[in-house]
Amino acid sequence: MKKIVISTGGGDAPGLNAVIYAVVMSAQARGWEVYGSRGGYKGLIDPQEMMPLTPKIVEDITSLGGTILGSTNKGNPFAMPVKNLAGEMQIVDISDLIMKNFNRMGFSCHIAVGGDGSLDIARRFYEEKGMPVVGVPKTIDNDLFATQLTFGFDTAVSTATEAIDKLHSTAKSHDRVMVVEVMGRESGWIALNSGISGGADVILIPEIPFDMDSVRQKIEDNELHGKHYAIVVVAEGATAKDSGVVCRDNQCEVGRQEVLLGGIGDWVAKEVRRITEKDTRSLVLGHLQRGGSPTTFDRLLALRFGAAAVRMVDEGLFGHMVALVNGEMQKVTLEEATRRRKKVDLNDDKILTAREIGICLGD
Amino acid sequence: MKKIVISTGGGDAPGLNAVIYAVVMSAQARGWEVYGSRGGYKGLIDPQEMMPLTPKIVEDITSLGGTILGSTNKGNPFAMPVKNLAGEMQIVDISDLIMKNFNRMGFSCHIAVGGDGSLDIARRFYEEKGMPVVGVPKTIDNDLFATQLTFGFDTAVSTATEAIDKLHSTAKSHDRVMVVEVMGRESGWIALNSGISGGADVILIPEIPFDMDSVRQKIEDNELHGKHYAIVVVAEGATAKDSGVVCRDNQCEVGRQEVLLGGIGDWVAKEVRRITEKDTRSLVLGHLQRGGSPTTFDRLLALRFGAAAVRMVDEGLFGHMVALVNGEMQKVTLEEATRRRKKVDLNDDKILTAREIGICLGD
Amino acid sequence: MKKIVISTGGGDAPGLNAVIYAVVMSAQARGWEVYGSRGGYKGLIDPQEMMPLTPKIVEDITSLGGTILGSTNKGNPFAMPVKNLAGEMQIVDISDLIMKNFNRMGFSCHIAVGGDGSLDIARRFYEEKGMPVVGVPKTIDNDLFATQLTFGFDTAVSTATEAIDKLHSTAKSHDRVMVVEVMGRESGWIALNSGISGGADVILIPEIPFDMDSVRQKIEDNELHGKHYAIVVVAEGATAKDSGVVCRDNQCEVGRQEVLLGGIGDWVAKEVRRITEKDTRSLVLGHLQRGGSPTTFDRLLALRFGAAAVRMVDEGLFGHMVALVNGEMQKVTLEEATRRRKKVDLNDDKILTAREIGICLGD
Amino acid sequence: MKKIVISTGGGDAPGLNAVIYAVVMSAQARGWEVYGSRGGYKGLIDPQEMMPLTPKIVEDITSLGGTILGSTNKGNPFAMPVKNLAGEMQIVDISDLIMKNFNRMGFSCHIAVGGDGSLDIARRFYEEKGMPVVGVPKTIDNDLFATQLTFGFDTAVSTATEAIDKLHSTAKSHDRVMVVEVMGRESGWIALNSGISGGADVILIPEIPFDMDSVRQKIEDNELHGKHYAIVVVAEGATAKDSGVVCRDNQCEVGRQEVLLGGIGDWVAKEVRRITEKDTRSLVLGHLQRGGSPTTFDRLLALRFGAAAVRMVDEGLFGHMVALVNGEMQKVTLEEATRRRKKVDLNDDKILTAREIGICLGD
Repeated sequence: MKKIVISTGGGDAPGLNAVIYAVVMSAQARGWEVYGSRGGYKGLIDPQEMMPLTPKIVEDITSLGGTILGSTNKGNPFAMPVKNLAGEMQIVDISDLIMKNFNRMGFSCHIAVGGDGSLDIARRFYEEKGMPVVGVPKTIDNDLFATQLTFGFDTAVSTATEAIDKLHSTAKSHDRVMVVEVMGRESGWIALNSGISGGADVILIPEIPFDMDSVRQKIEDNELHGKHYAIVVVAEGATAKDSGVVCRDNQCEVGRQEVLLGGIGDWVAKEVRRITEKDTRSLVLGHLQRGGSPTTFDRLLALRFGAAAVRMVDEGLFGHMVALVNGEMQKVTLEEATRRRKKVDLNDDKILTAREIGICLGD
Repeated sequence: MKKIVISTGGGDAPGLNAVIYAVVMSAQARGWEVYGSRGGYKGLIDPQEMMPLTPKIVEDITSLGGTILGSTNKGNPFAMPVKNLAGEMQIVDISDLIMKNFNRMGFSCHIAVGGDGSLDIARRFYEEKGMPVVGVPKTIDNDLFATQLTFGFDTAVSTATEAIDKLHSTAKSHDRVMVVEVMGRESGWIALNSGISGGADVILIPEIPFDMDSVRQKIEDNELHGKHYAIVVVAEGATAKDSGVVCRDNQCEVGRQEVLLGGIGDWVAKEVRRITEKDTRSLVLGHLQRGGSPTTFDRLLALRFGAAAVRMVDEGLFGHMVALVNGEMQKVTLEEATRRRKKVDLNDDKILTAREIGICLGD
Repeated sequence: MKKIVISTGGGDAPGLNAVIYAVVMSAQARGWEVYGSRGGYKGLIDPQEMMPLTPKIVEDITSLGGTILGSTNKGNPFAMPVKNLAGEMQIVDISDLIMKNFNRMGFSCHIAVGGDGSLDIARRFYEEKGMPVVGVPKTIDNDLFATQLTFGFDTAVSTATEAIDKLHSTAKSHDRVMVVEVMGRESGWIALNSGISGGADVILIPEIPFDMDSVRQKIEDNELHGKHYAIVVVAEGATAKDSGVVCRDNQCEVGRQEVLLGGIGDWVAKEVRRITEKDTRSLVLGHLQRGGSPTTFDRLLALRFGAAAVRMVDEGLFGHMVALVNGEMQKVTLEEATRRRKKVDLNDDKILTAREIGICLGD
Repeated sequence: MKKIVISTGGGDAPGLNAVIYAVVMSAQARGWEVYGSRGGYKGLIDPQEMMPLTPKIVEDITSLGGTILGSTNKGNPFAMPVKNLAGEMQIVDISDLIMKNFNRMGFSCHIAVGGDGSLDIARRFYEEKGMPVVGVPKTIDNDLFATQLTFGFDTAVSTATEAIDKLHSTAKSHDRVMVVEVMGRESGWIALNSGISGGADVILIPEIPFDMDSVRQKIEDNELHGKHYAIVVVAEGATAKDSGVVCRDNQCEVGRQEVLLGGIGDWVAKEVRRITEKDTRSLVLGHLQRGGSPTTFDRLLALRFGAAAVRMVDEGLFGHMVALVNGEMQKVTLEEATRRRKKVDLNDDKILTAREIGICLGD
């Protein structure tokens, strides 16, 4: 009989609850017990934050957004900011406390669901403290290198595409340029996929620094062909070539000079308005992309990941993460899993497709 | 045989195409012809902007967002800004030209679909120029006094509610306050309906000037009851009592001093962050609410309005607008139709419902 | 301090959980307690089937389909079939037992959510046993006379319209006639509303006995106009004039002779196939229409009903049901509420609209 | 300058219009022309059925279901049934006529979008008549061997999953067994994916002949664990082991004896009702699965396929079909493409996942 603790860490992603469901059901089929640690590792600090997970409790959670294990961003146990008695913030390492509690509570292993931050912490528990860990990848941006896809991404792309669809009719009815900023700090997957699917005119991604002149050109071409509106999709991490503008934390600067309160999407909108004199609006999708019920695709993927994680526990494959490789469940070491980010490859056929169907990529 | 010209004016609303469909089909059943004037009255200025509307052309448009008659905001024919030969802007009255073309093209009547601006222009054509006009109300905000409901509103409320639903899971997973700004410059219908349906904690509407202290209180109450997140829905026209802050055109000012680039939603978020020290994010739904396919409810309502407009043409009831009164199609004069706005009545049972189920209305 | 018991009876309808939510929250705001009786009156027979309902428990249920009070069709307490010791079925009256338990458990009143069957039982408890009862109307068919609308109907119409939308593309791509049977045993509201919204060619409702010859005519007219497909929406209670065919319990008979296993939709499809020689398929939407998350419209309506029911408890208005009259929350006596069914009025403007936009109603 | 003719053949699938869009746009980017042949090869028989496809015409079609090239099932040009002058049906080979018209109309090549039937015809035109052909795979069942995935499948799985979701609440509210028959004559992909995602209790697929006793066992197990309802998903091609029952064309037979009008889903429902005495309903999703707007996933895939097909034309790779292999666009010969069907591999991790999370597969 094994006793598993599962945690979910980092930003939330649609499908987390489906992973939990599959872990609980697969464990139950083997006669094992599962507990959920609320708030990342909090359940391993305070027993009140540890909840037993039974088939009854998880019965209807597969299609729910968020995570029943509650808030996820609770810091790094190896470097946790806490207030001391004097009220000052201190950084402490509570990993030994957590490991002690893990053993005292009688857990056999830990299934850690998270992005590269959380998986790296899990790796340290495995390597430095000897905790038997299996990882499950979670990244809404699809930027983990070791897995072809992760749950949450299809939902985020669908949400963004639906938004672009909605903006089409209003852009067309009012001869407007609509600029939509979507997630993607390091990589342009969400922008690229939703932009192609949604019929954007321009897609700007971090992998291709853009030139406002190309954007202007595309909008003018539209006009020439009798299309008096345009949709511009901008990944939050896109950067303007030769402009000197840097956007961070909802603020754009040139040099140390603030030029705009807002993100890169707002800056692009401002520039389009200035250059083309067209009525231009911007919209930041933000947290809409993380929320909501997972798509069918993401539900299935998350359930497969959850079941595969328990299978790996059964086979004693600790220190690994489940991954989707060539459409199949595979394992990679936690070390490999977190080593590097997956960027949009400029030879990817999606890039070709975008260009060929007439989308401007800003270069 | 009658020959109808139909125009759509003002901001777009889901259901415009369904009105057009019903007008074309109902006219066809009577052996009449229908033409669509693109860009408001542009088809009555330039014949190239006039399109014949046949059952074949409108076959699949009922569920499409926007309007097939293209861009709608094309100014007031009674006071149209145009450039003269010297390149200077001048205001000219082209209503006589339009009336002459209307007669020369042999139209029997004009079905004008629009909000109070467009309907007022239609009223002037009827009263001052003798154009036989039937109006169809369009206001996504639901703020026309003469009709119980108009198409587009249910879709806007649904879009806003879906967005609130999506924010729930991410707010809960990260212990955040999420502030969502929805449409409603003069009236809080969209905020109220979507906020109640979506389970908001706070709803701020123009009809009830709000006190940030009530908002703070509600968020603190949530904490006391173990709910560490909150959803705040703000109508774009909501105002903060005793704050002196005025938000307009995406800018908030106190006195003549700019305090924030952004709308009232952003200001509320900033204040919540300051007062409660909670992680607080804001989102402006903006044009998402105008776009997309109409809900089934709005489709049916729009089809009924379109058919009723043709019925009024058949009965010679010009100078009137179709209206929904007690669930039935009725007529009101264009004069009454545009006289005043419908605000949220503070004795409305929806206000009571909101309060009773624990929603803070900011007072 | 009041103690309310709430029950949900009859077939399920999207919005039941929203009613429960609003009742719990509104009661809580007054400092009252709420209990839910599972399985209709079962909680008043077996205390194990009674569950306390707190804000925490109902926190996330508003958008869930079904009812958290579990199965609903559990018979009439005034005439309950039970097995006696000899194993024979007997009809017993357990209403006194229920009333005794109601009192013993200390309940102040009962909020009964249900259709006319359940509301009639509630009325008898009120009139014959003195139970303080407030009713909330639930009928997915929209056929309760005393209320303009009830929750669940908009969702059912939306589900049916979405299905019709989906069938359009496949009907058109294959030159087919698609026959869709929707709910509506006594009244054609769902068929009429979804058929108009979905662009059906033919709508057959119980209120207008149909002639297959009209249906054939319409399909042939379509062909003449180059439309080689058709969508026929049939309410399950529609009847064919002069055909002698009677469909019941998924079986159609002429005289006592079975002619078809299936409902009226299947029979219509068979006849269309025979008469027109066109490739014709039928589909029964069935329980899809009862399921799923309520639309925003239904959520709001259900929340308003729930809050209004508690308001009526507060005012001591027992023996009444909440109702929507002219867009407002009103009360009607339970006696009136269940007296008669609301049928489609043949002068309703929706009937006119259907005819005018070219839909055949079978007459 | 090339001149492409595109055709869509076989049953419709969401995404066909997205393929057409990408072909037109990619061709336009190269300065080529595209024509669409309506009704499969009809445009190559009758010039009136040939339509020029311009960017303007395809502007808004990406998200539409069906195909703008109209009805698709128009027979095999190599063996076409036609009436002769005496009114008798004859099988004629019109492939030479089509090839002659293809040349006379000046086409450079043919992009044939279709399933294995249509692709096999395309292959014969390529091999026997020398027509330069590029194939694009279309199969809603996902049963083409040569491509990992095709557009339409994700939409069909999503539609089926949504239906299962809706049935959950009503099954639970009424303690019912709901049997849902989904598409999949030869392979169980849709049943398997939607059943897992939708939380089915039982999934029956063609690849695993089922035993009603296992199904009974699962339903009884549910009861033991306090779950009084069950969802059974049945692929239309599933077969009952040792029962002798054969279902075809909506009729089930044992020996030559008809036992039921209906498909395998209806038969399973009848058996479940008989064996378990539970209230059991069946529903056939049928054409709902083919219809509607493609999911974002399918849109993107279809756009990629369309662009890749034009790329293959550019490179002169005729006699091939585009395929998705390891997430990338690849080519396979038409000969390989149609050679065999892809069945569910019983070692697939989705089969494991299903079993491990407690789903009965009927064996």
